[in-house]
Amino acid sequence: MRAPLFEAVPNFSEGKDETKISRVTNAVRAVRGVRILGLHSDPDHNRSVLTFAGEEDAVLSGAITLSKVCAAELDLASQSGEHPRMGVLDVLPFVPLEGATMDDAVRLAHRAGESLGSLGFPVFLYGSAATASHRRALPDVRRGGYEGVISRLGDPLWKPDYGPKTVDPHKGAVAVGARPFLVAFNAYLDTDDVEIAQAVARRVRESGGGLPAVRALGFGVGGMAQVSMNLTDLERTPIPAALEAVRSAAADLGASVESTELVGLAPLRAILQSARHYLGLRELDANHVLEMMLSDDSDSRSE
Amino acid sequence: MRAPLFEAVPNFSEGKDETKISRVTNAVRAVRGVRILGLHSDPDHNRSVLTFAGEEDAVLSGAITLSKVCAAELDLASQSGEHPRMGVLDVLPFVPLEGATMDDAVRLAHRAGESLGSLGFPVFLYGSAATASHRRALPDVRRGGYEGVISRLGDPLWKPDYGPKTVDPHKGAVAVGARPFLVAFNAYLDTDDVEIAQAVARRVRESGGGLPAVRALGFGVGGMAQVSMNLTDLERTPIPAALEAVRSAAADLGASVESTELVGLAPLRAILQSARHYLGLRELDANHVLEMMLSDDSDSRSE
Repeated sequence: MRAPLFEAVPNFSEGKDETKISRVTNAVRAVRGVRILGLHSDPDHNRSVLTFAGEEDAVLSGAITLSKVCAAELDLASQSGEHPRMGVLDVLPFVPLEGATMDDAVRLAHRAGESLGSLGFPVFLYGSAATASHRRALPDVRRGGYEGVISRLGDPLWKPDYGPKTVDPHKGAVAVGARPFLVAFNAYLDTDDVEIAQAVARRVRESGGGLPAVRALGFGVGGMAQVSMNLTDLERTPIPAALEAVRSAAADLGASVESTELVGLAPLRAILQSARHYLGLRELDANHVLEMMLSDDSDSRSE
Repeated sequence: MRAPLFEAVPNFSEGKDETKISRVTNAVRAVRGVRILGLHSDPDHNRSVLTFAGEEDAVLSGAITLSKVCAAELDLASQSGEHPRMGVLDVLPFVPLEGATMDDAVRLAHRAGESLGSLGFPVFLYGSAATASHRRALPDVRRGGYEGVISRLGDPLWKPDYGPKTVDPHKGAVAVGARPFLVAFNAYLDTDDVEIAQAVARRVRESGGGLPAVRALGFGVGGMAQVSMNLTDLERTPIPAALEAVRSAAADLGASVESTELVGLAPLRAILQSARHYLGLRELDANHVLEMMLSDDSDSRSE
């Protein structure tokens, strides 16, 4: 039995300067027990999303190292970009992976919040780690970005959970949270009409009465209309259900899905669900996958 | 970089007596470095198929242990079953897995053949390990079963590759081979008419001018017509191509595919191919699968 694993998906406010991005990433990579799973830098947003994983203490060390190197390398006062931001280390969500529960991730978020607070970052807990319901949604926590945080400093409803009650203009504040693993799945339509993508998104997402555990937005990307989805609970809505809903909604508007993409990682379960659905398989689980049976921790799986 | 891995898929001539089957399986399981991947016992055929994997020396040790325990526990002279058999350890194919080539598997088959020969089994090499083209196909090597082997003993074309030139009636002879990994994939039709399954099988299999690297037969299984396929090269014919060919051939005969099953293991690649095909994914590889990125040998995969 392996120790519980966690993922951290920090967003930091540098997406252009490759030297700085490398310094930040390499500092985290050097932390013992941390595995880097991905890095996505967006120059327009001037923002990077780093994904790393490991056991609780390793991920906590990675997060602390990350906050220090962001404070040392980046300067919020001289940073600009399209994406709203409130700090050099802007958002830091923790996600429970194998063997970990959401409660475990909430505990990790508190531990990280306390450490980052003592390093001088005002910390706002959000998501499942939020300490009040009005602070649960990330958009509410970071509304107005850095300037918004400053404007709410005197409001007792928006007191930081950890750290100073003042904000250093060079490093800013940070939102630290716990949230479920989510699959980012995008569908490209055979049209450049963004309004069609937006209409499809409205129809398939949970907030519009569509599928449970689905968030969706319509965008124009590279001359194509894109329905961008986050699937937050694959048991309630697996990828095939989301895709078929998009295909059906698009068809009603005279469009069709030309291709799809997975952004970042998906659990094997999501892939198995998809194969099972479309192949009509009676059963298919990790026990049928050669690599999983050969992996070093598969003893519990073999017959 | 991990050492090359091999799979062995021995067929032994006991499918009813659970005590004996357990003794055989447990002896192999106890070999250091061997991982048991599966066991399928068929009482009607009175035959079991064991699948195990590991590095070359471990798999070789497993095969030698297996041959000894089969000789000790089983007796061909008192064995009967529907499936033709020529020995207590009847067939022993080696399959190259991660990091191994077919040449590596052929070398392993020769090493195993030499060892089993010295233990008193007449050994016939087949498949990619065959020493002559007329001995390549397994059905030719074991034609007539034990009695067939006896009848060919004087024929220089059928001299054993290793071991004695006489056959012990209690342990019989063994076919040792090397072959590619194959995916066993079955489609159940919405009919009990076996002839439809047979007609579909004839149309989709390579030998009937159908899809490359596909072997197929039609059976009646549990009151349903079943198209039973072996896919021997997933680059040439992946699962979705085979299934769509079956769906199309069945539709021409007024039938449809009700469900499918995977017998034994499939490489992750096969599952990814299926998800990619039906989801319309631009790309999907092991780097997108969380569990693969978290596994202990994924260092070469991460960025």
